Amino acid sequence: MSTSEGSVHEPNPGAIFDNINAYQRSAALKAAIELDVFTEIARGSRNADAIAQAVSASTRGVRILCDYLAISGFLVKDRDQYSLTIDSGMFLDRNSPAYFGSVVDFLLDPRLIAPFLNLTDVVRTGTTTLPDEGTVSRDNPIWVDFAKQMAPMIFPTAIEIAALVAGDGEIRVLDLAAGHGLFGILIAQQNLKARITALDWANVLAVASENAKKFGVAGRHSTLEGDAFEVEFGGPYDLILVTNFFHHFDPPTCEKLMRKILAALAPGGRSVTLDFLPNEDRVSPPIAGGFAMMMLGTTPAGDAYTFAEYDAMFRNAGFASSKFHSLTKAPQSLVISTKA
Amino acid sequence: MSTSEGSVHEPNPGAIFDNINAYQRSAALKAAIELDVFTEIARGSRNADAIAQAVSASTRGVRILCDYLAISGFLVKDRDQYSLTIDSGMFLDRNSPAYFGSVVDFLLDPRLIAPFLNLTDVVRTGTTTLPDEGTVSRDNPIWVDFAKQMAPMIFPTAIEIAALVAGDGEIRVLDLAAGHGLFGILIAQQNLKARITALDWANVLAVASENAKKFGVAGRHSTLEGDAFEVEFGGPYDLILVTNFFHHFDPPTCEKLMRKILAALAPGGRSVTLDFLPNEDRVSPPIAGGFAMMMLGTTPAGDAYTFAEYDAMFRNAGFASSKFHSLTKAPQSLVISTKA
Repeated sequence: MSTSEGSVHEPNPGAIFDNINAYQRSAALKAAIELDVFTEIARGSRNADAIAQAVSASTRGVRILCDYLAISGFLVKDRDQYSLTIDSGMFLDRNSPAYFGSVVDFLLDPRLIAPFLNLTDVVRTGTTTLPDEGTVSRDNPIWVDFAKQMAPMIFPTAIEIAALVAGDGEIRVLDLAAGHGLFGILIAQQNLKARITALDWANVLAVASENAKKFGVAGRHSTLEGDAFEVEFGGPYDLILVTNFFHHFDPPTCEKLMRKILAALAPGGRSVTLDFLPNEDRVSPPIAGGFAMMMLGTTPAGDAYTFAEYDAMFRNAGFASSKFHSLTKAPQSLVISTKA
Repeated sequence: MSTSEGSVHEPNPGAIFDNINAYQRSAALKAAIELDVFTEIARGSRNADAIAQAVSASTRGVRILCDYLAISGFLVKDRDQYSLTIDSGMFLDRNSPAYFGSVVDFLLDPRLIAPFLNLTDVVRTGTTTLPDEGTVSRDNPIWVDFAKQMAPMIFPTAIEIAALVAGDGEIRVLDLAAGHGLFGILIAQQNLKARITALDWANVLAVASENAKKFGVAGRHSTLEGDAFEVEFGGPYDLILVTNFFHHFDPPTCEKLMRKILAALAPGGRSVTLDFLPNEDRVSPPIAGGFAMMMLGTTPAGDAYTFAEYDAMFRNAGFASSKFHSLTKAPQSLVISTKA
């Protein structure tokens, strides 16, 4: 919405007004997903009246919501008829295999957005206003929701990573802070000789174990309960997966965990990091750079680290080398770090 | 943030992820304005450390905030140095005469954003979840804040409108729901024979009267306390200003007010409507179309009406004709409707 009314040549308040009101974009996507507006449009309801009837909502509300979604780029409007875009058809129609509408339950959980209602205080102190250690506090039930609700969005990325690292030999894999467990589970699906150990808090592991059953790899999927910083990893492992995890912590804490990972790897073993890696400028690509804001709001000291920072942290921890891999299905990237 | 990682050719979750998190854009602008980050950068603080010291905040918080603002297009980053854009320099540096950072206090008032925390319910019922009649309830103190905090943003628009309609003859002007009163006051400044009557609730009129003094037109500026739908307008007037007001109401209510306006106009008199007028498609231009969402969330039955709808409502109310005027300094447009 910001581009057409902003201007680089003459001052224009449009972009500022638009960004101040951007919270309505979050609200609109959440409402449309919760009401299944995208699903009903895919099923054939096309104008505001028909959609309103299908989703049991008011015509005024649905018409204004759908117009707003058309402005935001998630619907196409032709006269009074709405249709899905490629993205909304793929990801927001409940009958699409790639549906991930459930992510709004996690990403817009009132507990997660609370610090952003007074971000000024967070910027002042430099740390989350959430109690304890924010979202990384022990046994925080938000990670059970994460494991359940974010899995569909992560699925294509898990397939892509498995294709890159699973190989076909006998390997032992530690899936650190496994959550839904899909990263390890997809490796087990890809490589029938892979054995996975999923580590997380007990309440979260229940979700991972259920997924292992669902994907038919329960026989090669075991669990290890506890805090990644405290529990004995066992091993040695050939692969240790650290997916969407380092960003919650400051560099000394990351390095401490990297040293523990190094000790649990077999010679030649690899640590596979999936995370939001901005370029050196920290402001591109936009989603990776912008992710630091999520960490500012919700953690005591987390961040979106660049590859150079990961490379340095892994070297400090004793790894021989790290390599950057971009992914085609996710805004995150991979860092694959090898033990000598 | 959404364009570079979305794609019209291949499905990509980036734009959905970005829009779900868009509430952080509102939060970031509010925090930066409240901390006066833009003002301190204009004063010469350029890197995160220097800015943090100048605004008494943490370096981590300021660095992540400034990177996020660079991604959103409100700062330029060169190595570790931040500078203002044309828009942020003009409107968000407190020492700029066009500064309007105070609008975040109104636009992001917790009372205004509350309905958007559960927009699903609003869409279901088709009406605001705010108590009474939402923001249009009688003597709602939010309009005192509006009158104080939104005035700077409205100022260039008020100048532009005055130049269009003030003329140079003796005119009587009724400034309906006057708020800060600037639209009438700027006409009085432009045309020294104009006499203004500002109508609003008593608590709001105090702000308008203060502004009339400040702009040196208090001698030709009187006030009329009450509800625009109930109080006797007096008159006849040559101009009746209805700025950012009709959007709060449904068409029958708008027409009722238009009939009352017609009755208070002299023959040949004009009603001047300033409002968000989307094109017939209701989804362009984006800010005017998107404004309907603000009305869905905060009013019982308000909307962003097209020119064709205004034209029909004014004709139904007995006006001879209406003309559309676009403005260069605002996302709103004008409708000037003439009494026969």
